[in-house]
Amino acid sequence: MTGTPTDRAARIIARCREIAACTEVPGEITRLFLTPPMHKVHALLRDWMEAAGMTVRVDAIGNLRGFWPGLTPGSPHLLIASHLDTVPNAGAFDGILGVVLGVAILEELSGQHLPFAIEVIGFSEEEGVRFSKPFLGSLALVGKLDAETLARTDRSGISVRQAIQAYGLDPAQLPAAALANETFAYLEFHIEQGPVLESEDTSLGMVEALVGQTRMELTFTGQANHAGTTPMHLRHDAMAAAAEWIVAVEDYASSHNGLVATVGKVEVTHGAGNVIAGHVTASLDVRHADDGAREASVIAILKHAETAATRRGVHVTSSKQLEQPAVPLDPHLTTLLDKAATHAGYPGRRMTSGAGHDAMILAPKIPSAMLFLRSPGGLSHHPDEAVLLQDVEAALATAMEFLAQLRDDRTNPKDGHA
Amino acid sequence: MTGTPTDRAARIIARCREIAACTEVPGEITRLFLTPPMHKVHALLRDWMEAAGMTVRVDAIGNLRGFWPGLTPGSPHLLIASHLDTVPNAGAFDGILGVVLGVAILEELSGQHLPFAIEVIGFSEEEGVRFSKPFLGSLALVGKLDAETLARTDRSGISVRQAIQAYGLDPAQLPAAALANETFAYLEFHIEQGPVLESEDTSLGMVEALVGQTRMELTFTGQANHAGTTPMHLRHDAMAAAAEWIVAVEDYASSHNGLVATVGKVEVTHGAGNVIAGHVTASLDVRHADDGAREASVIAILKHAETAATRRGVHVTSSKQLEQPAVPLDPHLTTLLDKAATHAGYPGRRMTSGAGHDAMILAPKIPSAMLFLRSPGGLSHHPDEAVLLQDVEAALATAMEFLAQLRDDRTNPKDGHA
Repeated sequence: MTGTPTDRAARIIARCREIAACTEVPGEITRLFLTPPMHKVHALLRDWMEAAGMTVRVDAIGNLRGFWPGLTPGSPHLLIASHLDTVPNAGAFDGILGVVLGVAILEELSGQHLPFAIEVIGFSEEEGVRFSKPFLGSLALVGKLDAETLARTDRSGISVRQAIQAYGLDPAQLPAAALANETFAYLEFHIEQGPVLESEDTSLGMVEALVGQTRMELTFTGQANHAGTTPMHLRHDAMAAAAEWIVAVEDYASSHNGLVATVGKVEVTHGAGNVIAGHVTASLDVRHADDGAREASVIAILKHAETAATRRGVHVTSSKQLEQPAVPLDPHLTTLLDKAATHAGYPGRRMTSGAGHDAMILAPKIPSAMLFLRSPGGLSHHPDEAVLLQDVEAALATAMEFLAQLRDDRTNPKDGHA
Repeated sequence: MTGTPTDRAARIIARCREIAACTEVPGEITRLFLTPPMHKVHALLRDWMEAAGMTVRVDAIGNLRGFWPGLTPGSPHLLIASHLDTVPNAGAFDGILGVVLGVAILEELSGQHLPFAIEVIGFSEEEGVRFSKPFLGSLALVGKLDAETLARTDRSGISVRQAIQAYGLDPAQLPAAALANETFAYLEFHIEQGPVLESEDTSLGMVEALVGQTRMELTFTGQANHAGTTPMHLRHDAMAAAAEWIVAVEDYASSHNGLVATVGKVEVTHGAGNVIAGHVTASLDVRHADDGAREASVIAILKHAETAATRRGVHVTSSKQLEQPAVPLDPHLTTLLDKAATHAGYPGRRMTSGAGHDAMILAPKIPSAMLFLRSPGGLSHHPDEAVLLQDVEAALATAMEFLAQLRDDRTNPKDGHA
């Protein structure tokens, strides 16, 4: 490779920005599943991959896949992947950084073959925007793109199946998108999309688990009444009940390690300044890396709602909208990643991911690891989303060290599992 | 008069229900200022008033006014009044009950003349629905229907002035709607529109004052962020800040006698279940019969908002939308009314009115008193709004006793003021 490590990190950032220009909406970054600008993204990545010596194909769900063989035929495969699509009005790094970093790793290898093959994949869909269902790209690898999903339609009435065809692909070839049997590990680089690493002045985070999540809606039903003529002691104020509960949710989560709980949506039905609220709906989002801890928290939080409501003669009900178990990543691979970062001179911190990533889909099938890069300002899904040059340099150095660790580990497995 | 007192109370209720059939919207009670159904209301009341011996006219703002002379020409005038209009989808008693009771009082007199004349007025407008400005009827009596008000337009672009003309009246005659110089007292009967009398199992309430009111809007600005990736200690949650404040508002008002404070409207800008709230607006409505107490409460309540916001790195601002001083009613007339209720066998309770009434407009000009009748369920501005037969009987008996007290009081003023 040419240039200093810093030059190479700068080129990764420049490539992400070049791909950011592939957009459906001029002036912003908006690139949904298999929309026309994705052709240009594929062309750019294909050029870089082929220049690095990889064999490139596009599978039937539109994943771009570059392959670099191992030392011997039938070598096991390491996947390095993230996604190519964006949310509307996105930033330039969410997803794509992990793919561009994958290509840069191959460039660092400079033609060297390892005891395992490497496949770099740019998943066609992760954000769930176009078809209101996320992870279309990675689901194809694990054989979970079912008929219901293929029949889903976007706002224009176009189905997933039709979108695949319109892009020039053949849905009949979907089975060929499945993971090769030789696949032994999955590695994903991603920006943190949160403020933890920045708050601790740290470049890198090793993800131990993607948190599980419960989403609920609570409804507080009191008695709408005149704000002037109803004395305080005769009220059944649904908003006051909801407010006491919202404070309790914050208190509870703040005093339980690793727990986040959020009431982000609150609606007073027919709310008016001079009317005591009779009916309030509020969302609840609870996440924890330990499913038991999450479930216990939800029960405690609902009890707080009951207390706040009953005190005011208000009735509260709740309905569950989503319950998603936590996905642990592979402890051994994560330890190797941790060691690699330290050896490379960039010690990171263990953490959980509060957001979903493609690793959630792969981890139940193959040992998976994930490396977070600090998000300046904790910002993501926003045009100002950024990544620091020094952190990209740290990630690339860690990746190369990780390959070395992985090679040694496979040569002498007992060491690695000690 | 014919029939028992209970029969006469039943007739008052029946007349209110008969007038309720005069509506713009079949199937509900909706009767805005000078809309076509008001002609029928006028016709019904005119018939009843004339049958009781009164002289009837409609003034230029559309108030229906029945006059019953005193013993001698130039006798002072007692006004008994309330309003004829309703809110959309209203009940059958708000406003109209006070007018129908006024007519019934004349019927109870059975042609007897008192040392004062009695004018019964049905105000054409009090609710403020059609022109977003309340009290049009009573404002005409105190000469406060200004050019700005007459130029106001409704949803169809029709001005107050045009509405007057369309009803067949002449805006040039508005000055003749003013209070006669001989007016010495104003009396208004109205349903309580709140739960206080019912909660104390009492028929009648003597209103000492109409509360003053402050209305504000508060804006909490934090930082919108991902609900999964942002740990609790790094959040600036605008909804949690607002919630702590809403609970503080309720606590504060509950521990201060005679105070009501309400947060009835809460909006999370771009609220979503998986996004920490970055921006929340909330209404504040504070009422008290003592202006100083209200002003001190508003200051204390805003300080609570500051505390709740600062604790979370959230910024809070507030803007005042309305500040309306309390209106005290006449203590002497109120004492007479209190005595009258007790003499009639229906001892009531002193109270304040948390809602606005025509008495607010008249009280600054002439000594005024107001009698509340219990509202079953505290319900008003609702099709199920009701009044109890026994309470109407109590109000009518109290009214007749009040006339006797007033006559004695005027004969021997020193007694009354003792």
